[in-house]
Amino acid sequence: MSTRRVVALAGGIGGARLVEGLAAVLADDELTIVVNTADDFEHLGLFVSPDVDTITYTLAGIADRQRGWGLEGETFRTLASVTALGGPSWFQLGDADLGTHLMRTARRHRGDRLTTITLDHAKAFGVRHRILPMSDSPRATKLELHDGRELDFQPWLVGERGQPPVRAVRFEGTRLSTPEVRDAIDAADLVVIAPSNPYVSIDPILTLDGIRERVDRKPTIGMSPIVSGRAVKGPLASMLRDVAGVVPSARAIVDHYAGLLDAIVVETGDEIGLTIPAHATRTVMGDRDDRARLAHELLRFAEVTLR
Amino acid sequence: MSTRRVVALAGGIGGARLVEGLAAVLADDELTIVVNTADDFEHLGLFVSPDVDTITYTLAGIADRQRGWGLEGETFRTLASVTALGGPSWFQLGDADLGTHLMRTARRHRGDRLTTITLDHAKAFGVRHRILPMSDSPRATKLELHDGRELDFQPWLVGERGQPPVRAVRFEGTRLSTPEVRDAIDAADLVVIAPSNPYVSIDPILTLDGIRERVDRKPTIGMSPIVSGRAVKGPLASMLRDVAGVVPSARAIVDHYAGLLDAIVVETGDEIGLTIPAHATRTVMGDRDDRARLAHELLRFAEVTLR
Repeated sequence: MSTRRVVALAGGIGGARLVEGLAAVLADDELTIVVNTADDFEHLGLFVSPDVDTITYTLAGIADRQRGWGLEGETFRTLASVTALGGPSWFQLGDADLGTHLMRTARRHRGDRLTTITLDHAKAFGVRHRILPMSDSPRATKLELHDGRELDFQPWLVGERGQPPVRAVRFEGTRLSTPEVRDAIDAADLVVIAPSNPYVSIDPILTLDGIRERVDRKPTIGMSPIVSGRAVKGPLASMLRDVAGVVPSARAIVDHYAGLLDAIVVETGDEIGLTIPAHATRTVMGDRDDRARLAHELLRFAEVTLR
Repeated sequence: MSTRRVVALAGGIGGARLVEGLAAVLADDELTIVVNTADDFEHLGLFVSPDVDTITYTLAGIADRQRGWGLEGETFRTLASVTALGGPSWFQLGDADLGTHLMRTARRHRGDRLTTITLDHAKAFGVRHRILPMSDSPRATKLELHDGRELDFQPWLVGERGQPPVRAVRFEGTRLSTPEVRDAIDAADLVVIAPSNPYVSIDPILTLDGIRERVDRKPTIGMSPIVSGRAVKGPLASMLRDVAGVVPSARAIVDHYAGLLDAIVVETGDEIGLTIPAHATRTVMGDRDDRARLAHELLRFAEVTLR
């Protein structure tokens, strides 16, 4: 394969599945994952980076496959204690997971970059591929709701289960990516947009200064997070309706990215009406082998189509 | 009994045993415990108050009786995770215990007083008696060692197992107690100095502005933490030798407090040579009943002797 350097843009759970597949078929130095940090938040004084941790735990093979987030075999004793003392219970803080948050927080307080911390954590967990947070500085996702409220991402997603209809998504905070992210994209032969939520997982990355322009210069392939009109995971289907007023479909995803995608992988049947090259296959990912199979198909399709 | 209001000054483990006994024989409003906070420290960004927590957990009946610190049935999954990520392992951070530290830290960051937090935690754990930290502000114990180094308390006690000989103990930080502490002592019929380490557990309280003078105006009874020339727990015996150059004994304890104690409870045989009224009994405390028995003897002796 001539595609030697791949950059994947990814959010949490949906993105992690394809990323695990890509990691299974690409060598250590062939894959860099740029991860959304716009749903990072501070909880009980801890810096929590849900997407970074989900990607890291998934590639380390220690993620809980059932839940999709957190660690396998996790316990919740600290959370029980916090709750008994009148603290918040809406965020499921696992005991082992907490070690990651404590270390990230302590190191950020002494001035370490999130990039360095993320690379160190990935290494400690035995991850072979490079995981880069999209930025070292906070960027927050704000959801303007149809009921007039504005909520931060986690209170909306976890606290209110992603139920209240969203009118618009905007971002606050830094517009700076990192040298590592920019260099990785510039050096890439292919950019893969993971099947993550475009509004809250991919747009935060693309709207950083210079990133969309950089991705636009590269062969770019996506995978649709909408399968037969429904989101595989999370609130994306209703967001497409509530924010854009469109029917959830692979076409809606292509339209959302407005010319950025050169090709797309979709569920068989969802390719109808697409105006860019589409590879139709089974995209709902099962075990690790299935994820590798899909990553392999995606890379081969990109090579044939985008050469 | 005419002694209705008792204030106990206490540190951690040694103090907690007698305090548990006092709590077993005194009504809710008859006992206030003023707890040392000069071995509080920040660990991984968390405010840890070892003595406050030891007293609280002990009175709540959830302390680990074997170890003397921490919670019964504790697990250490967060610590394992922290250590795997290159973090410090010298301090045994329990998963459930961590909930206490997280809540204390979060509340201190938003401006709550340590006094309020401590009272709330005690209430949440079902403690009936009043536990007051000696101060709301940091006061740090510094140990000047014979080898020329100066160490903070926890790195010396836990990190170096209290081994390096101490030349002198000094305190840095606030000299302010709290209105609650001052009012409790002023309203007390009796002050009990628990069998804690005088250098690092009781002196930090007594050297706060106005506290020693207040205690001096009250009938005050101590219990010797030295039994037959040895410390029941911890590094006190060697400290008496290394700091004061004296042989560890009940007499050395009385001398250390320099006139503050009006009476003392000592192990049978240790009363020889004492110049204040002494009640000799078995002071090495076993189970809860034994602790109550001893507290009862102490209170009765105080009543008879100090009326």
